[in-house]
Amino acid sequence: MTIKALTFDVFGTLVDWRGGVAREAEAILAPKGVRKDWGAFADAWRALYQPAMRKVRRGERPFTILDVLHRENLVDLLAAEGVEGLSETEIDHLNRAWHRLDPWPDVAAGLHRLKSKFILASLSNGNIALAVNLAKRSGLPWDVILGAEVTGAYKPSGEAYLGAARRLGLEPDECLMVAAHPTDLEAAASRGFHTAYVHRPLEDGPGREAARPAPGTFDYCADDLLSLADILGA
Amino acid sequence: MTIKALTFDVFGTLVDWRGGVAREAEAILAPKGVRKDWGAFADAWRALYQPAMRKVRRGERPFTILDVLHRENLVDLLAAEGVEGLSETEIDHLNRAWHRLDPWPDVAAGLHRLKSKFILASLSNGNIALAVNLAKRSGLPWDVILGAEVTGAYKPSGEAYLGAARRLGLEPDECLMVAAHPTDLEAAASRGFHTAYVHRPLEDGPGREAARPAPGTFDYCADDLLSLADILGA
Repeated sequence: MTIKALTFDVFGTLVDWRGGVAREAEAILAPKGVRKDWGAFADAWRALYQPAMRKVRRGERPFTILDVLHRENLVDLLAAEGVEGLSETEIDHLNRAWHRLDPWPDVAAGLHRLKSKFILASLSNGNIALAVNLAKRSGLPWDVILGAEVTGAYKPSGEAYLGAARRLGLEPDECLMVAAHPTDLEAAASRGFHTAYVHRPLEDGPGREAARPAPGTFDYCADDLLSLADILGA
Repeated sequence: MTIKALTFDVFGTLVDWRGGVAREAEAILAPKGVRKDWGAFADAWRALYQPAMRKVRRGERPFTILDVLHRENLVDLLAAEGVEGLSETEIDHLNRAWHRLDPWPDVAAGLHRLKSKFILASLSNGNIALAVNLAKRSGLPWDVILGAEVTGAYKPSGEAYLGAARRLGLEPDECLMVAAHPTDLEAAASRGFHTAYVHRPLEDGPGREAARPAPGTFDYCADDLLSLADILGA
């Protein structure tokens, strides 16, 4: 075991983005008379996430932090959904719903156990302020916040992983990427990271559980971070 | 009080660079028969720090992390001091003495108190790996590691402070710079940060205590981080 650092995906892997965005959207928009399926609203906002990052990955626009991409997408979504009359301040507040997401129940305790043995790094496409605010709100004990704003690269670009390892002063094979998403883990593995898949059956909402990867696809497979801590002896 | 984040200088303000570098240099070089005043050796290495960063600040070379600048300076210093025969691995290990410095006795407890009320950010000229390793070794509970490698700017350049505030999603006047060095605080203040001076009488070794700034020079003045926590109500 040469692993020195664990690098974590955040949205879906550690925090419930769909439930949190739905809750925040309802809290802000329902009092204004807006009626929606709030889970579907969260899905529609999230659906604009990959296309926005793709423009950065392809060099069609300079690196832009996720708070800005989220806000552009939100303005488009509100227009498409026929929601009108929000002030700029209200849009900002709704946009920062992504800073107020709840972690899955095992996350804080699991990270505290893992921290005793490994360097814990947030390796998210979220920007630094977003990651800091999520962590501060829920007591997530990061040793360091890396990710898109630090490396200037959005996952699954190779530089997102290589740049993270380099900033830790480590080789890729001294790092373990932890995520609920095979695409993230496959990209990390192709750059030399070890990989741990964590199953999050509720990420996309009830009754929409993703298939588990076939055994052996990734180095480790866990049902939550407490199970991962057991596996890694932390 | 609108302060949301405390940004900390590290070398001298939080950790005893002179004592730590002297200890590590002696531990590595004395068994090879080298005899030195190890405090003076640390001073000589530190004296090369500002000139090396100045070349980056002036644009005479691209941004280069401190581990690399420290190592270049160490190679020059060893030659000047007549120390020969170290392997590359031994030079690397000695260079990483800066990753193994001890904090002043109040630091871990003081940061834990301050963390309950504020975002705590490392804002050092050290690179990310250096800051992570220092913190991991001594239990310094950062919310986020900022500083030169994140902003691409060495203090006291203005961008070192403005870039830190921007990455936190904060205005400069929502940030408080904490440092033992007036030049650092003056530069932060000129960019709109609040300032807290912490007196570290032993930074430069016994009998070489810096003069305290005149009252009113900075927003706050404290003898250690526990006293700063008292002042800030944390």
